[in-house]
Amino acid sequence: MAEVSNKQVKLRDYVVSGSPKESDMVVTSTTTKLKLPEGSKGVLVKNLYLSCDPYMRGRMSKSHDISYVEPLKPDSPIAGYGVARVLESGDPNFKEGDLIWGITGWEEYSIINEIHTLFKIHDTDVPLSYYTGILDFIPPFLPSLQPNKGLNLSLYLFTLTPLPSLQPNKFVGMPGITAYVGFYEICSPKKGEYVFISAALGAVGQLVGQFAKLSGCYVVGSAGSSEKVDLLKNKFGFDDAFNYKEEPDLDAALKRYFPEGIDIYFENVGGKMLDAVLQNVREHARISVCGMISQYNLEQPEGVQNLMNLVWKRVRMEGFLVFEHYPLYPKFLEFVLPHIKEGKIVYAEDVVEGLESAPAALIGIFSGRNIGKQVVVVSHE
Amino acid sequence: MAEVSNKQVKLRDYVVSGSPKESDMVVTSTTTKLKLPEGSKGVLVKNLYLSCDPYMRGRMSKSHDISYVEPLKPDSPIAGYGVARVLESGDPNFKEGDLIWGITGWEEYSIINEIHTLFKIHDTDVPLSYYTGILDFIPPFLPSLQPNKGLNLSLYLFTLTPLPSLQPNKFVGMPGITAYVGFYEICSPKKGEYVFISAALGAVGQLVGQFAKLSGCYVVGSAGSSEKVDLLKNKFGFDDAFNYKEEPDLDAALKRYFPEGIDIYFENVGGKMLDAVLQNVREHARISVCGMISQYNLEQPEGVQNLMNLVWKRVRMEGFLVFEHYPLYPKFLEFVLPHIKEGKIVYAEDVVEGLESAPAALIGIFSGRNIGKQVVVVSHE
Repeated sequence: MAEVSNKQVKLRDYVVSGSPKESDMVVTSTTTKLKLPEGSKGVLVKNLYLSCDPYMRGRMSKSHDISYVEPLKPDSPIAGYGVARVLESGDPNFKEGDLIWGITGWEEYSIINEIHTLFKIHDTDVPLSYYTGILDFIPPFLPSLQPNKGLNLSLYLFTLTPLPSLQPNKFVGMPGITAYVGFYEICSPKKGEYVFISAALGAVGQLVGQFAKLSGCYVVGSAGSSEKVDLLKNKFGFDDAFNYKEEPDLDAALKRYFPEGIDIYFENVGGKMLDAVLQNVREHARISVCGMISQYNLEQPEGVQNLMNLVWKRVRMEGFLVFEHYPLYPKFLEFVLPHIKEGKIVYAEDVVEGLESAPAALIGIFSGRNIGKQVVVVSHE
Repeated sequence: MAEVSNKQVKLRDYVVSGSPKESDMVVTSTTTKLKLPEGSKGVLVKNLYLSCDPYMRGRMSKSHDISYVEPLKPDSPIAGYGVARVLESGDPNFKEGDLIWGITGWEEYSIINEIHTLFKIHDTDVPLSYYTGILDFIPPFLPSLQPNKGLNLSLYLFTLTPLPSLQPNKFVGMPGITAYVGFYEICSPKKGEYVFISAALGAVGQLVGQFAKLSGCYVVGSAGSSEKVDLLKNKFGFDDAFNYKEEPDLDAALKRYFPEGIDIYFENVGGKMLDAVLQNVREHARISVCGMISQYNLEQPEGVQNLMNLVWKRVRMEGFLVFEHYPLYPKFLEFVLPHIKEGKIVYAEDVVEGLESAPAALIGIFSGRNIGKQVVVVSHE
């Protein structure tokens, strides 16, 4: 069999500290036979889309201390979530022509032996790249992801939350199901309720806002730039939005945007914003705590003072981790796929073409350059 | 009809500021005909037990600012919760001989015209004084107590929480149903779970601890003196207890008492204790927020820093006000009465005899002199 060229993006060496740089990666080309080795139980795939995610920073460090997921190997193709076409399969669950998503390599062709990390794509009527984003759900196949096994979930989570060198408000994986669980399961929204979302242009926030509109709620989001505020109002259909950096008094801002108070707060930032929300909750408000990204880079978290309002207003505040809601994934797909197909849900992607662009795209998410989920197209087939 | 003597405790004049003093009240005697006025639709009662409650401080001030419930009248008998026997009734719902509880006067005989504040006692197989305490439930008959009517509940609540001049950890009314709702409805306890209660010798805390033991939980309480710690362990059946004033490091203390972590926290104090609990919650813990008494006298509440643990541990934290759970009152009685009769629930009362002792008893609750609900016996009949 003839060999074909196989472009690859490799990690040059472990990143010791700080943000990774483009020069930490190298784009090279090798050749490969488009054939599985004799007796292989893996799959040979052609990669189509690759996902750039903040957690990948952790895997670029040698130490296990900052990432439960094992480090990448220097001088090997970077591994990450992607969408691919099966060219040959040694496993009965996959056959030639299948579309899959899961952990693959940053290269044109990969042989994947860890086939338990792969999932067949059944619905191809939506952009395939969405399987690295809105439709993504890291299933609990890794030991660290299985609840009730005594493993330290928070270690794993560390890889999903920004490291000190990362920008807040960036994409942390599984935004679709996270927004779904955090909004529908935790908040029990009712038509006409007042919903506030912080970090609203984050991958999760923008979806929560759209879900809330679908549920007939009034939705206001906060974000950190006027460009983002415009997008929230004009692209994502929020009823209103504001730039929190331009509001010296968050309590006053919320009173302006919610004269009737807040029924549902989707909490992504914590600290002062949470305190201001607590001053503006309505009776029986629900606060879904998804994250507190404003606090991650602080040595000491800010103190939240207005918790007694949980009593006065009879408020439920609940944290969740999406891993635990794995059984809801089919229900989520059933809910979200029709909306995507009908164009009722907007999902923002920042797409670059070609593996050559991949290192810059990955670096970009750490400086907040992207607007929307960062995706690399390897091939349109 | 002959007149009988009627001893009374009157408010001498409004208390301007600070704790009330015995000299703010006067014990006098008058005479009364044991007969309702012609055409009265009220009831004539013989008072048996009177309740001393912190909220009464508010009624001793002239200003409505510090108490939604209207001020007492100087030179009139003090009004408060009590248990009484009906001697004559102008209302078809009550008849001679009935035992009632509700708002009555600090005197031997009262004519009560506000009969909508009265409730008939059906179960007389428990100490009648319990109807001023563990079995007490202020029903939503006052406009201020009816939810969804747009009235300012927090104003009313102010009268139920200690004023600046009051001692924390004292009795704030309706402890039985508060403990019941806050523990069973909010915490959904399961056998074998680890329960922590702050202000555990408070009227609510001591009952939550006993309910938790009845549910097969492991229960530890914190309190502010070694005498109280002894009572928790030896009288109220807590598995363990500690004096928080002797613990410079609350996190370390909780790690010592809960090496496995805390499943349920019944929150009565807030601030540093809540922060320490958040460092020791188990996965899926529930925090029932009943009050934050450590914070009421502070100009600025302490900041709570460890709220991100709500996410890591998937914790639900929920505030409640017992008023909203009025429909559960019959269910609560059905639950608690048999336990009281069988002696499975200990309810601490601090009982003094005679109206002459009432002023000192009322003053005592503001300096923390009492251990248990303060009750005055007017007559054993």
